[in-house]
Amino acid sequence: MTVPENPPIITLTTDFGPGGPYAAAVKGVFRAHCPSAVVDELSHDIAPWDLTGAALFLEGALPWYPPGCIHVVVVDPGVGTGRRPVVVSAGGSLLVGPDNGIFSLLLRRIGFDGAWVIEQCPLFPEKISPTFHGRDLFAPAAAWLARGNPPESLGSGAGDLVQLEMPYPVVGAEGELSGKVVHVDRFGNCITNISSEVFTGGRVRVEARGGLLELPFCQTYGDAPRGTALALIGSGGRLEVAVREGNASAVLGIGGGTAVVVYPNP
Amino acid sequence: MTVPENPPIITLTTDFGPGGPYAAAVKGVFRAHCPSAVVDELSHDIAPWDLTGAALFLEGALPWYPPGCIHVVVVDPGVGTGRRPVVVSAGGSLLVGPDNGIFSLLLRRIGFDGAWVIEQCPLFPEKISPTFHGRDLFAPAAAWLARGNPPESLGSGAGDLVQLEMPYPVVGAEGELSGKVVHVDRFGNCITNISSEVFTGGRVRVEARGGLLELPFCQTYGDAPRGTALALIGSGGRLEVAVREGNASAVLGIGGGTAVVVYPNP
Amino acid sequence: MTVPENPPIITLTTDFGPGGPYAAAVKGVFRAHCPSAVVDELSHDIAPWDLTGAALFLEGALPWYPPGCIHVVVVDPGVGTGRRPVVVSAGGSLLVGPDNGIFSLLLRRIGFDGAWVIEQCPLFPEKISPTFHGRDLFAPAAAWLARGNPPESLGSGAGDLVQLEMPYPVVGAEGELSGKVVHVDRFGNCITNISSEVFTGGRVRVEARGGLLELPFCQTYGDAPRGTALALIGSGGRLEVAVREGNASAVLGIGGGTAVVVYPNP
Repeated sequence: MTVPENPPIITLTTDFGPGGPYAAAVKGVFRAHCPSAVVDELSHDIAPWDLTGAALFLEGALPWYPPGCIHVVVVDPGVGTGRRPVVVSAGGSLLVGPDNGIFSLLLRRIGFDGAWVIEQCPLFPEKISPTFHGRDLFAPAAAWLARGNPPESLGSGAGDLVQLEMPYPVVGAEGELSGKVVHVDRFGNCITNISSEVFTGGRVRVEARGGLLELPFCQTYGDAPRGTALALIGSGGRLEVAVREGNASAVLGIGGGTAVVVYPNP
Repeated sequence: MTVPENPPIITLTTDFGPGGPYAAAVKGVFRAHCPSAVVDELSHDIAPWDLTGAALFLEGALPWYPPGCIHVVVVDPGVGTGRRPVVVSAGGSLLVGPDNGIFSLLLRRIGFDGAWVIEQCPLFPEKISPTFHGRDLFAPAAAWLARGNPPESLGSGAGDLVQLEMPYPVVGAEGELSGKVVHVDRFGNCITNISSEVFTGGRVRVEARGGLLELPFCQTYGDAPRGTALALIGSGGRLEVAVREGNASAVLGIGGGTAVVVYPNP
Repeated sequence: MTVPENPPIITLTTDFGPGGPYAAAVKGVFRAHCPSAVVDELSHDIAPWDLTGAALFLEGALPWYPPGCIHVVVVDPGVGTGRRPVVVSAGGSLLVGPDNGIFSLLLRRIGFDGAWVIEQCPLFPEKISPTFHGRDLFAPAAAWLARGNPPESLGSGAGDLVQLEMPYPVVGAEGELSGKVVHVDRFGNCITNISSEVFTGGRVRVEARGGLLELPFCQTYGDAPRGTALALIGSGGRLEVAVREGNASAVLGIGGGTAVVVYPNP
């Protein structure tokens, strides 16, 4: 693919947090090298080094953007070591970031057209900080792509990408689907590894603080009485455990790793 | 009214928090349907489901924007239930969000020209998630309006809107004005329901941890000695209790609901 | 200097925090008076009234922006008192904010071409809130500059600016360089007042919880085994103490003020 119309859209997703100068420096590099770009910051609050959280975030957010964007993602515990910096072509957009699995959930959903290792770029600074590839490597590469240059100009083909070890739910002897909570959002909603594609209904049970709890399956939070627990397919297309206008994680004493099992209807 | 000049300005205020993909998905929908828009994120840190906090936020922020904007607000505990999605015309701009009272403080201040229920929109996705109207209903409607379409094209007149139950201060037997703290900001400043319109001076007393405390009334924080408590009219036009370079809420042991009484000068 | 090409870039750095309406109101003023500007929010999470944190942030972030920007900074504990509002010309850009030392680390690095006191501006509102110069004074002044007006039009020359009292590292009897931690970032990395210009190698020791700890000096976090402590020159050009994929501040029990000493190699 060749990239953007006018103006190009660059998005930025990181684990930099809101307080430091890191995100600002990255944006400064975008402005310096591609002042015409629209820059959307998607989040700087991925938990530090949380590859699964980053992968779920990208899966939930990027499909809503139009084709032709440059999506930069910097969640990069291996910065400065052997992990490869890559640009990935998928769904008509380009993804720029470390090859550490953060793109893999998204790519399973939207497909994958090719990837290149970022080896050189005319916009690289003279000295690339070994601790801050976001600013010195990914940002200039993204600006270069946003100017309309093809990903091939950055380096050679990357071949296979690193896959995230995302546990899939497993089907047991009684036909039950055993999954678990893989993420807790800000509202305390507990998102599982059971996607809407594999969930075909049934009785949802979760290992809560007080023992095994069966949850009514609802279309939306408001279908349950205030303060009670429910299961539903969340807006990201995954089964989640929630409490209406409450914090399911705190109220039920559940979180990352908690077992969620779906038994077939009798 | 018909809306925007070029480029249209869309603002976004939510309780999504900074970490999740929800705000990013909403922005993606804006970019997909109205790439020319300027998008300003005002806050994603309204406390979850806090209608009063949202209403105070909008009252403090939106009047500073120029006319012709599309202001999208998603603080929506009733998503997927009977509450109506609306577009409201006020002060030359359009407000898009749930009809749950969040606009009412703002509308008392800037007036109200009309409202429509959002019933249909050519930009709606095929399937509207019952848990995420921000992405699937409000964002497409806002993009539609930002393209210059009139609010009447989205649905029929909404009539009266839901009003927030915001306690007003009351005048007592001795002429004293009894109000209370309705919001604590990040600095610990405690903002009351006593607006500058009803506050005409007097001795300000607050029920602090150590008993009833009388506060000097100042023009600005710096007028009080460092670390001491004061009362002032804050930048949002409301009486607030503050501590210079300190956290009034923590230092005085006050917060939402704390009584603040203004006695007439003798 | 005369300012920007088209469109002008305004950046905004504050200690307003993410939840309140203050940043939104400032952006509204930018949009009202200079709708063509690109507005980049760099951070609203400088710790409240933290002049050192603000100065380090600006030093780390602003050099990456291209010349011709208007950088607005509102970390302003003295708002409404005698401290001067200023516009500073440096590195081809203009800095707008209070004269309280927040610009001093940046100016030592990029130089300083002149400063003016902000005394009048055609865009000032009729009434300037004594508690919110960010919205009523700095934002209109920045919009005025972004429209291409020269800083001289805002007021008279400011002469010398307030300098931040930033402790410099000192050299001791044995040739050791004694510095200290001046900032802890989101990852728990502890950034010192020892800049890369004065650090010429040596054995880095820090007063950790368990006693004096000698740290291996690395090029990047990934050079140390997971969970172990290291020293490195961070992306902002300062010596920092880190733990690979861990929180150095929490793990080592160190933070602002902790002594970090570099002994010459034997």
